[in-house]
Amino acid sequence: MNIILLDSKNTLGDGLYGLTLRQQTHISKVIKAQQGDVLRVGILNGKIGEGVYESPSEDRAGYIHSLNLSSLPPEPLPMVLVMALPRPNMLKRTLQNITAMGVKDLYLIHSAKVEKSYWQSPVLQTESIQQCLLEGLEQAKDTVMPNWSLIPRFRPFVEDQLPDILKDKVGLLAHPYLSKRCPIDIQQPCVLALGPEGGWNEFEVSKWHEAGMESVHLGDRILKVETVVPVLLSRLYPA
Amino acid sequence: MNIILLDSKNTLGDGLYGLTLRQQTHISKVIKAQQGDVLRVGILNGKIGEGVYESPSEDRAGYIHSLNLSSLPPEPLPMVLVMALPRPNMLKRTLQNITAMGVKDLYLIHSAKVEKSYWQSPVLQTESIQQCLLEGLEQAKDTVMPNWSLIPRFRPFVEDQLPDILKDKVGLLAHPYLSKRCPIDIQQPCVLALGPEGGWNEFEVSKWHEAGMESVHLGDRILKVETVVPVLLSRLYPA
Repeated sequence: MNIILLDSKNTLGDGLYGLTLRQQTHISKVIKAQQGDVLRVGILNGKIGEGVYESPSEDRAGYIHSLNLSSLPPEPLPMVLVMALPRPNMLKRTLQNITAMGVKDLYLIHSAKVEKSYWQSPVLQTESIQQCLLEGLEQAKDTVMPNWSLIPRFRPFVEDQLPDILKDKVGLLAHPYLSKRCPIDIQQPCVLALGPEGGWNEFEVSKWHEAGMESVHLGDRILKVETVVPVLLSRLYPA
Repeated sequence: MNIILLDSKNTLGDGLYGLTLRQQTHISKVIKAQQGDVLRVGILNGKIGEGVYESPSEDRAGYIHSLNLSSLPPEPLPMVLVMALPRPNMLKRTLQNITAMGVKDLYLIHSAKVEKSYWQSPVLQTESIQQCLLEGLEQAKDTVMPNWSLIPRFRPFVEDQLPDILKDKVGLLAHPYLSKRCPIDIQQPCVLALGPEGGWNEFEVSKWHEAGMESVHLGDRILKVETVVPVLLSRLYPA
């Protein structure tokens, strides 16, 4: 937690913001802040800066006051990530990393090689996903929650929704076969579609291509999803 | 396991290679190969290609025969990675990812912000590290085991060993303060030094600089070690 993200839902009035249990625990146990210490804070979906810490007392929780919010959050990545739903044990970490790197538009989509059972995972509950995204923001000192959607049906998305999403953007399909080398430092918005372990199947590839996406590859090495995501984002938009 | 790596230690003569228990389990349970199937194999530190699978019988283990080794393993990264020892619960994954991405020279080094207890972790036993590296090779269809060293003392390494290692290479110190933007697609060998959570301290930075390393940063976002490694390698040497 590299920033305390204050939610206007938790305002106490007069510029005071109550701390959540997670934040209070982090401040007490990890930062070991004392009453009156100045901490790095941000307003959820707003600016970042500093605030003064008021430690909890017997009759009330800890809070932050006297905010000085001088900076904008870090730049978002100008891209839409469409990702085959990863296996549940990879999902949390992947969501955190995607968010920490600055993705603001995320679609988790079905694909032939995504096991149907993945869609039943409790990790996909709204609160669970929001929590992962929040942790990604806290990691990267960002404040802006990503937009995300679950897309359990591949075809209607690619046929009906994708054309609008793709407007004025480059469409890149991560697909190792019969493809060109993935471009570097592209300087323009993109839609990036990332397949499941085992890749997109032929039908899916043809649908992506019909919609205007171009296949790109990352060389001979097969990498895990958790590695491919930072590899791709970093080469498309090096910070 | 995207390739079955055969070790000349396990040769049975006549071009036959015995399978380890891990390999046999993967072939039986995941690939579900049948007797006579052709599998993707490689010789540890050698070429890659195909081999024929002979399933186990009552009196002997499974093995591979009739090897056809036609390809070289993927290109290594032309770099030396010097990394502050990560916390043990991140180490395995980090070692696997580093290896999968093609690092062949790795130093795990002490730093003021590395907890001393990390050096006692069982993950640092030779067999455990070798196992992580092997899994990285199996992931990326590579065959060439990285060289690695543990450096529990910072100063003698930077003063005495680093100058030789750095010869004819660019020296890059990942350090967010007072530094230039990390270069992209550098096309020349480098030594990359990556700090612990919390970064190198001032003394360490000055020692790296004295040795000829230059500080580079990755922008405003603070990323976890497991994310920074693929981000850095991918932007320095995009595949």
